[in-house]
Amino acid sequence: MSTPFVQSPSIGVFDSGFGGLTVLRALLNLLPQAQFSFLGDTARLPYGSKSRRTIARYAAESARFLVEEQGAEYLVIACNTASALALDAIQEAVPVPVLGVIEPGASAARATSRTGDVLVIATDATVQSHAYSAACQALGLRALEKACPLLVPLVEEGWVDHPVTAQVIEIYLNELRAEAAQKGFDPDTLVLGCTHYPLLRRAFEKAVRPGTVVIDSAEAAAEAAVQLVSGRRSAFVDALPPLPRSAQLQCFATDSVEKFERLGSRFLGRPVGPVRLVDLGG
Amino acid sequence: MSTPFVQSPSIGVFDSGFGGLTVLRALLNLLPQAQFSFLGDTARLPYGSKSRRTIARYAAESARFLVEEQGAEYLVIACNTASALALDAIQEAVPVPVLGVIEPGASAARATSRTGDVLVIATDATVQSHAYSAACQALGLRALEKACPLLVPLVEEGWVDHPVTAQVIEIYLNELRAEAAQKGFDPDTLVLGCTHYPLLRRAFEKAVRPGTVVIDSAEAAAEAAVQLVSGRRSAFVDALPPLPRSAQLQCFATDSVEKFERLGSRFLGRPVGPVRLVDLGG
Repeated sequence: MSTPFVQSPSIGVFDSGFGGLTVLRALLNLLPQAQFSFLGDTARLPYGSKSRRTIARYAAESARFLVEEQGAEYLVIACNTASALALDAIQEAVPVPVLGVIEPGASAARATSRTGDVLVIATDATVQSHAYSAACQALGLRALEKACPLLVPLVEEGWVDHPVTAQVIEIYLNELRAEAAQKGFDPDTLVLGCTHYPLLRRAFEKAVRPGTVVIDSAEAAAEAAVQLVSGRRSAFVDALPPLPRSAQLQCFATDSVEKFERLGSRFLGRPVGPVRLVDLGG
Repeated sequence: MSTPFVQSPSIGVFDSGFGGLTVLRALLNLLPQAQFSFLGDTARLPYGSKSRRTIARYAAESARFLVEEQGAEYLVIACNTASALALDAIQEAVPVPVLGVIEPGASAARATSRTGDVLVIATDATVQSHAYSAACQALGLRALEKACPLLVPLVEEGWVDHPVTAQVIEIYLNELRAEAAQKGFDPDTLVLGCTHYPLLRRAFEKAVRPGTVVIDSAEAAAEAAVQLVSGRRSAFVDALPPLPRSAQLQCFATDSVEKFERLGSRFLGRPVGPVRLVDLGG
């Protein structure tokens, strides 16, 4: 787990459920020498239907668990709703660098878009927060957001390469394109603004117009996290050997450990290992 | 609201969300002289992913609100998960008659099935509780249950008469029929074991084999509630004039009042009226 001279960086990754495992999947590939603790606050999901105050309290409790009890030196908020509504509250709650998924997604869109017009699909709660619009606007982009509430249940049902899912994607994209045309947008980039959507990336790449770039905000967040860690201790980290798989990751959930273990591997792309149940209270 | 001699019966109806408004819809038609208080515990939904102990605590708190603060003399648990996992806890929490949706659904199936073999579709949590199987078995029926997790989001998206929904229903029914054939079942009845599903009743009636009866557990529960109220005070209640609409119903929610008002009318079949926000804690 450590060399005599350098400790593996310890990174906490947090989501209300297990969608954030797509961010962790990218992180495990990019930082094989780091140790990860993942917490899914599954007893209190979905955050999307709750008030900002409640989400901030839940997210801060989760962040403290990862930092104070698991020793995370960096925190990645792999949850669009918590990133959109509670990033400040989390940053106040813990004394380590905290990274959300929204700004990396917007930055990746900035790097690829030539027209400056971007489409963002996300959950209802994320769209209603307009966090992507704000992050895009700060980078000089115009964003058109659309909630796609059927996509999370379709992914959780396992219908990733399914004709029904392809139809639903087509319907949502047609509605979004019609709105874009009506508002005079000329979009060339589509941001997948939900940590469940990377599992549908190929389906989206088939469905978009030729020339449209599909941005995976999970991957963008993982790349930003690598920059953050490397910026602080690059020479040391690069010198470390990759950790054995069993030492790389411990997952925690606040409820539904079975469902987490069953569905989690789809998002992580490999078994999540034994998930430990934790009680964060009410 | 009352005559000099007889008080309108006051009935509390409870759901974790607003699907239970389909039960209320049937009740409003069957008991136009009663007063209804409906509580949707929207801040803490979905109950399905929570433990039995937590669901029991939430449901008991909701039941006490309807009885102690709204004066309900009867309680209808218009929520399959709470009926399946917390009916006992609710009955212990309040001193009034309490009716769930599962036994009325099973009884209605008993009344129509000739083969004694019944199919039940419901949410994942309700299926995992096997409450319908137990209720059917107690009546001498064999039940085959299937979770259909995409149907609630499709209804909430408003895709009730939509080709995608028809395809999803066809896929779920085909899987269920294949399992029935494999297990030697000869089903002639399909129970809609979720309060969202009555909005898909016509779609199911089109999709089932000729001769299969579709049982709406919301309607069955409403009919059982009428029998309960009438059995206790039939002569008095029958003599009462119907209440004016504005005096018939008050809805409460623990969060998301706007979403409740927007989606609720679809389930109730008329506007839900102003929804009052209540705080049940936790």
